[in-house]
Parts: sequence; structure tokens; C-alpha cells
Amino acid sequence: MPTTLKEFESVWPRIVTDIVNHCQQYKLPQQSLDWFIKQLNYNTVGGKCNRGMSVVDTASILRNQTLTPDSEDYFRAALLGWMIELLQAFFLVSDDIMDSSKTRRGNPCWYLAPKVGMIAINDAFMLEAAIYLLLKKHFRQEKSYVDMMELFHEVTFQTELGQLCDLLTAPEDDVNLDNFSLEKFSFIVIYKTAFYSFYLPVALALHFCGAATPKNLQTSLDILIPMGEYFQAQDDYLDAFADPEVLGKIGTDIQDNKCSWLINQALKKVTPEQRKILEENYGQKNTECEAKVKTLYHELNLAGFYTEWEEERVSELRAKIEKVDESEGLKKEIFETFLKKIYKRSK
Amino acid sequence: MPTTLKEFESVWPRIVTDIVNHCQQYKLPQQSLDWFIKQLNYNTVGGKCNRGMSVVDTASILRNQTLTPDSEDYFRAALLGWMIELLQAFFLVSDDIMDSSKTRRGNPCWYLAPKVGMIAINDAFMLEAAIYLLLKKHFRQEKSYVDMMELFHEVTFQTELGQLCDLLTAPEDDVNLDNFSLEKFSFIVIYKTAFYSFYLPVALALHFCGAATPKNLQTSLDILIPMGEYFQAQDDYLDAFADPEVLGKIGTDIQDNKCSWLINQALKKVTPEQRKILEENYGQKNTECEAKVKTLYHELNLAGFYTEWEEERVSELRAKIEKVDESEGLKKEIFETFLKKIYKRSK
Repeated sequence: MPTTLKEFESVWPRIVTDIVNHCQQYKLPQQSLDWFIKQLNYNTVGGKCNRGMSVVDTASILRNQTLTPDSEDYFRAALLGWMIELLQAFFLVSDDIMDSSKTRRGNPCWYLAPKVGMIAINDAFMLEAAIYLLLKKHFRQEKSYVDMMELFHEVTFQTELGQLCDLLTAPEDDVNLDNFSLEKFSFIVIYKTAFYSFYLPVALALHFCGAATPKNLQTSLDILIPMGEYFQAQDDYLDAFADPEVLGKIGTDIQDNKCSWLINQALKKVTPEQRKILEENYGQKNTECEAKVKTLYHELNLAGFYTEWEEERVSELRAKIEKVDESEGLKKEIFETFLKKIYKRSK
Repeated sequence: MPTTLKEFESVWPRIVTDIVNHCQQYKLPQQSLDWFIKQLNYNTVGGKCNRGMSVVDTASILRNQTLTPDSEDYFRAALLGWMIELLQAFFLVSDDIMDSSKTRRGNPCWYLAPKVGMIAINDAFMLEAAIYLLLKKHFRQEKSYVDMMELFHEVTFQTELGQLCDLLTAPEDDVNLDNFSLEKFSFIVIYKTAFYSFYLPVALALHFCGAATPKNLQTSLDILIPMGEYFQAQDDYLDAFADPEVLGKIGTDIQDNKCSWLINQALKKVTPEQRKILEENYGQKNTECEAKVKTLYHELNLAGFYTEWEEERVSELRAKIEKVDESEGLKKEIFETFLKKIYKRSK
């Protein structure tokens, strides 16, 4: 049985208490402590927590036994999950500043909240620092402690490299389609999203269960990185083609000059005349330009092409999952569960 | 013999090569790699490198033998020193954004350099990430590896707590002297500056030389934290009282509403009438207001008070250094060297 958001969130107050205790040991003045607690809650809680919860679910599958919400094992697996949520909060708080975003999860972005401004940069740092504080407090005596620390370091760096490449490839104010390529698209989605969203939860669960053999980690990587790539391509497809009512938001990738799966596929298919249309209209903050790009997407039948492409990717993933060697404790079910959540989703 | 900036800087290209190799292994696109190399050099090199070099000098004292610049030992000690410089670069790039600073080391702040802007936030993250990449590459097999990682984590978090407290205590736009106190001053300088500038270099050198016993670390902390506090009080004194020609810059603490040693000492000494003068003139972006505050500092004889206070602090530090137990390999000379660089400096 998968864990619920309510169960997962019930662990959070204990995590805040750990962080607060640590700060009090430093004699942090009360005003600063209150601020830290406020931003921890504002930025870390309130999302869907898919990444965090998947640590718990993956651990349950590996153990062949559902972790029960009141157990210490549940707490420890959920704690690792919350560390991913902290890592993501660190990225989102800072990405929102870098992208001049306005809202996040229905609230103003943290840097736009009253009295915050650029203090949000230091707040983002502290979300990252909280990961290592919690890891030390709860996992210092584990064999996997160093591996988990190094894993967080590496995945953090990888995500930052992906973010750098994204920022340089698709600056909002300087549209240049020559910058785009499917290779860049892949680098950006793998580094910026797939490592921390797909690989990290499973790798942490493997460490947690004592099953993080080199082979199990490599097998997980070989499946989850392409799965993350597929997930992002799907996200890009939905941004342009899904019903905003169902999707829950209005896609803005075209106006935002995003190096998306669709624009890169379009660039491969266009005639010189059609390319000119893209050059003149992509990345413009303008509904008419956006509509012209969308019309071209339809003319190129990108939706049909996506559907075929998706079937191929999913078949490949299923074939890889089928071949998973479970002899060192890894389970096919882990990847089947991930894939089931993604395939044919509409939001 | 202390190391020179030239010797210390000669190590840097090898460090850049390590980082570049790591990125190439990830197949980072060239444009992103070029950007990373450029910002690494822009933000990490060009300072006085006092913190970094003091790792080398402290290691030489602990070993009772000058590390020779071409040796592998010199490289490894200097590498640890450069990690402090990377940590500082991470803080400075982001502090400059948070403080809306304009120049750093005679150049535009990185976020103000052409085409950079808020990408500087992600660049700052990558400076921090480089520390752990280098630590893993060169120290993974050392007994002290985990301790050094945890040390960087803890000192990073402490510095961020100090920065938070500083940002909340002295917002540039909201002058409120009730916010200030000598306790807050101490917290800010100890956390924001003393841990990473004074304790961290010595702690790293102790780990490097295999002399990081709990006792040696505690002794170092007990001397270096008050020394860092004294250093910052002196910095604040010089900001208002030193000849700008000698200091090499014009002090701006009064106009910037800084929670400095001087304003906190002044607040302890003022009559209610004098406090009113401070309330009306401190933190105003205005030379006349600044002059009124300085006149009051003179009336309160803060310069004379500082000189007395400095003598007391230095006597206390000398007494502590005199009592250092060298039986576990620690050396008084380490602290004497630090103190000599600070006492009676005029810039």
C-alpha cells in the first residue's frame, strides 16, 4: 500500500523540531529562529511530495512490507524523503528568483512575500544546509552515511549544472533557436530534473534498506534516467496540447522561450520557411505569436508524433524493467510503480 | 616561512582542471563549461587569500617544517585553503546580490557583470558544490574525510545563520536601533565571520596533519572565536576612525545601518538626548547625518574606549595562547601568527 500525503506530512513537525533544537544549541536569536521556521514551512510543505513519498514507497517494496506510519522505520524513510523535498525547496526558491516567477503552489513566490526580497537567497542556502544537519543527526552511525552524503552532493551539483545549461540555452530575453538541440534538451532534463526527481529517491531507499550495491544503483540509474527524460518530454507535450482545465495551469513554454521537447522536434521537421515562422514567433511574450507557433506544431503533427514516440519509450522502459536482475534485492515493482504514475497521465 | 600569494595561486590552475575534468565526464555542453570556468576565476581568484594561505602556514607550523611549494603536501594543504576561498566566493557572490553591492575587488560584482544577472545565484551554488567535488577527489581515502565534510557543512550553516541574523537585524531600509545589542553583534560576527575565517583554516590544517583531536579542536575554537570577534570590532573601528587613504576604502557602516561594534558601544553610553541624535541620523544615506553620528562617536570618546578595549582583548588572548597545551601536537605559534597579523593593523 502506498503511503498518503497525510501520513508523510505527519512526520514534518518532528523534522522542524530537530532543526530548531540544533539552532537553539547555537543560541540563534529568536527573531532569526522564527524567520527560519516560517520559511521552512512556507517553502518545503504544500507540494504533492511525490519525490519524498516515493522514498517510503520504494523502501516498502524493497522490504516487501508496508512501512507502518507510526514506526521508527517509517519516520527514517520519510525523513530521507523530506530531505529531497528540502533539496527541491532550495532549488525552487532560487529558481523562482532567477526566472522572475510570480507564484508557486498558489502563493506568492517566497522572494515576493512581504519583507523577504533577496533574503530568500540565504533562506534557500539554509534549506540545503538542513539536509546535512538531519543526515548527520539521524544517519551518522549507518554504514551508508558517507554514501548518502556524497549522493546528495553529486545530485545537487548535477541539478545545478542542468540549471546552468537551461539558463544559458534559453535566456528569456534573447531568442536564438540555433542554441537549441535535442542533445541540449536531454542534458537539461536529465541533469536539472531526472537525477533528483527519479534516481535520488530510489538510490536513497536502496541505501536505507542496505541494498545499494553498485549493480542495483546502476540498474536503477539505467531505467530512471530515461524515465525522467520521458517524463519531461511528456510535461512539455502537455504544456502545449493538454486542456488547461484538466492540466490545472496554462502552458507558457512557447512564450517563455523554453528549450522544450516540442520545439526541438519541430526544429528537426521544419522547412526553411517554417523555421522562419518559429524564429519570428517563438519566445515572444505575445498570444498571437504563441498561436502561430501552436498552429505550426499542429501542421507538423507533433501531437501524433509524440504519441508514437511515447509508445516507443514506454516499450523500451518496460523491456528494461522486465530484464531487471532481482538477485541483489532490487525489485521490478519499483520501476513499474514509477511508470504507472507517468504513462498516459493528463496532468 | 609563510607562503606567498604567488605560490598559493600557482596551485589554482590544477584545481580548475580537476573541476573541468569532472564536468566533462558529465558531458556538460561547452557553452556551460566555458561559463563555469569564467565565473570560477572571476569570483574565487583576486583576493588576498588570507584564509586559504593560513591553512598552508598552519600546516607548516604543525609539521614544524615549511611545506615546499612544489611538493604534493603543499598542493593538498593549499587545496584545502582554496576550498575556503570557494566557500567565501559562494558567500560573497550571494551577499553582493543581497546587499545590492556594486563592486568587489575593484571589479563589478559578478551579478552586475554583462549577461550575468540572477544566474549569479546558481553560479554561487556551483562554487559551493566544487568544494565537495574536490574533497571527494583528493581526500576520500583519508581518515579525516568525513570529519572535513561535516566541518564544511557545519561552518557553512553557521555562516548562513550569521548572515540571516545580520540581514534581519540591520535591514538597509528600516532603521531601528532597538534591534541592536552587543549580544546580536557578537552572534553576527562569530557566526557570519569568525567560524569560516578563523576557526575553519586551523581546523582543516589540524585534520590535514592528523592532529585534529577533540582537545586541539576545542582549544583552537576557544582562542580563534574571540579572536575573530576582536578582529571584527577592529574592522568596525577602522571603518569610522581610520584614514581612508591608509585603509584603502571609505567606511560606509553608518550610512549602511550596520550593527557594528561602535554603534552598539555608543548605545550603551548615550544620554536620552544623544540617543535621539543616533535615531535620527544613523542608517541615513546622507553625508550630513553620517557626520553627526561621527561627531557623537568622538564626544563619547569611542576611539579611546576602543584602544583600551583592544588592549584588554589582546591581553586575554595572549594569556589563553600562553596556556595552550602542546602535548597533542597543537602549537602556540599558530595563534601568535594569527594575532600578529591583526594587532595594531591599520588596514
